[in-house]
Amino acid sequence: MSGEATGERTLRDVGEFALIDRLVADIPQSDFVDVGPGDDAAVLQCSDGRVVVCVDVLVEGKHFRRDWSTAIDIGRRAAAASLSDINAMGAVSTALLVGVAAPGDLPATWLAEAGAGLKEEAANAGAVLVGGDTTEGDAVVLSVTALGSLEGRAAVTRGGAQVGDVVAVCGRLGWAAAGLAVLGRGFRSPKVLVDAHRYPVIDYTAGPRAATAGATAMIDVSDGLLADLGHIAAASGVAIDVHTEQLEVPEPLQAAASAYNVDPHGWMLTGGDDHALVACFPAKKKLPAGFTVIGVVGESPAQVTVDGAQFEGSAGFTHFA
Amino acid sequence: MSGEATGERTLRDVGEFALIDRLVADIPQSDFVDVGPGDDAAVLQCSDGRVVVCVDVLVEGKHFRRDWSTAIDIGRRAAAASLSDINAMGAVSTALLVGVAAPGDLPATWLAEAGAGLKEEAANAGAVLVGGDTTEGDAVVLSVTALGSLEGRAAVTRGGAQVGDVVAVCGRLGWAAAGLAVLGRGFRSPKVLVDAHRYPVIDYTAGPRAATAGATAMIDVSDGLLADLGHIAAASGVAIDVHTEQLEVPEPLQAAASAYNVDPHGWMLTGGDDHALVACFPAKKKLPAGFTVIGVVGESPAQVTVDGAQFEGSAGFTHFA
Repeated sequence: MSGEATGERTLRDVGEFALIDRLVADIPQSDFVDVGPGDDAAVLQCSDGRVVVCVDVLVEGKHFRRDWSTAIDIGRRAAAASLSDINAMGAVSTALLVGVAAPGDLPATWLAEAGAGLKEEAANAGAVLVGGDTTEGDAVVLSVTALGSLEGRAAVTRGGAQVGDVVAVCGRLGWAAAGLAVLGRGFRSPKVLVDAHRYPVIDYTAGPRAATAGATAMIDVSDGLLADLGHIAAASGVAIDVHTEQLEVPEPLQAAASAYNVDPHGWMLTGGDDHALVACFPAKKKLPAGFTVIGVVGESPAQVTVDGAQFEGSAGFTHFA
Repeated sequence: MSGEATGERTLRDVGEFALIDRLVADIPQSDFVDVGPGDDAAVLQCSDGRVVVCVDVLVEGKHFRRDWSTAIDIGRRAAAASLSDINAMGAVSTALLVGVAAPGDLPATWLAEAGAGLKEEAANAGAVLVGGDTTEGDAVVLSVTALGSLEGRAAVTRGGAQVGDVVAVCGRLGWAAAGLAVLGRGFRSPKVLVDAHRYPVIDYTAGPRAATAGATAMIDVSDGLLADLGHIAAASGVAIDVHTEQLEVPEPLQAAASAYNVDPHGWMLTGGDDHALVACFPAKKKLPAGFTVIGVVGESPAQVTVDGAQFEGSAGFTHFA
């Protein structure tokens, strides 16, 4: 419902400048912010002489619905998508910027709450919001830029996996997908799965930990495990085989899968949005805390198999598909 | 017209990953790019241990129309909006990232051409495209993040103007607004004004030059000279008076203003989108090349006047107004 219909103050009432001021107000600026929000650009310190940067776009109607999700949850998810990419390089997130398109009749409180969600997730990763731009558009679009620091480490790209490496995962697989399945069947429990669909729970220390432990390649699972491993396989020119017997099915997924008479591995292999990290490590290295082996790296062709065979079914989420 | 209606290949045909690959293909990576496009994030060197960063959003129907502007011009304008903000900090742009929302039936060539425009404008500023994210949305939204280097200089913010400073401008004022007026009256000439409305012509060396010359405050004129000087006045707590007799009216504006029987100062004082730089300098300092004095900085209250009086009329562009 629009703000104009309810008598709430809308973005059109508040005006652009007031809006940005509100979004970036009371931000605890950190030590590495030389120039914070409110100027033409922000200035950040890069302690090791490099900066890691990425952008991720969430669009209303595609990635979220305002009648299904709260503004704060949408803000969290938008921030998490970018912060997770920084994590997947083995870097620590330092700052966010957000580009917003939003309808003029959107309640101003909606954007303030989405901003609160962004800042909350940023804080989980140790980052602060340092800038943004808001303009009018028909649907809400949140384009989040995240910056991070490698703290002297080498970046862990998708292209370094070596034949003989193990493949290991840290974080949840399939929880958000299972939560969506629960909601799609009209249920609101198990709450832990529904909550996982609302916004991801991410260990933002796992990426740096994997980098320190010698990860050769890494990616965050945003489109689905197999789809994202496919990016590592392609960039590294290796084959990856996932062993389902090593994919321990967590209790909530087991329960939901039993109730709906489905194989929980489907959610775990193809569900996105949980932003687990999946990385390759030399087989002889000690895995960092929180990582569990789920497969191995073999010789080309660049492909991903499950228990040695092609996976039947959709491997992950594709936009415009 | 949609690509589906014309039989062209659409974004939906091409698919997201192919699309990003295409957008960032054949980019001449520069020396300071450690990890370029195609991974979770890019890694850039920051030679002086800091990075300047900003984001600017352009929305179809608000900032551009696909039936009025070519894709390449829209790409140029989107890049220029962010690159100009880096310039206004006294920094040199190094890299761009672009977040895109676009309809699935958009011809794939449109986005390729917009990307070419982005890259062309980036090259004008010495920057390269290092990443992006494309997703489906009802209208085209381009969210451009620009990064830059201060090369050891202090950042020039909006907040450093001192009483007694002169106010000086570098670049075009009112050309894009005059071009829009020309088009609005159904004409296609003077071409130089129509072209100015198509995309701005920006001196990306002017910001660093002003910083080196001791600028105390600086902003780029994106919303209109008076509106943007208002940001300096507010941030610095000073009054700014613009002297119209120092605003030399360029010949094309003079000619168009005569033809339409309007005061060309209206365009120069309130027209945005040319991205001139306006900066304050200590009165005794030698102005950098390309800058012309147009006013003075006085004591508070924080306000902008024209020839000592309040300006009658709209001071600039406000979104959601």
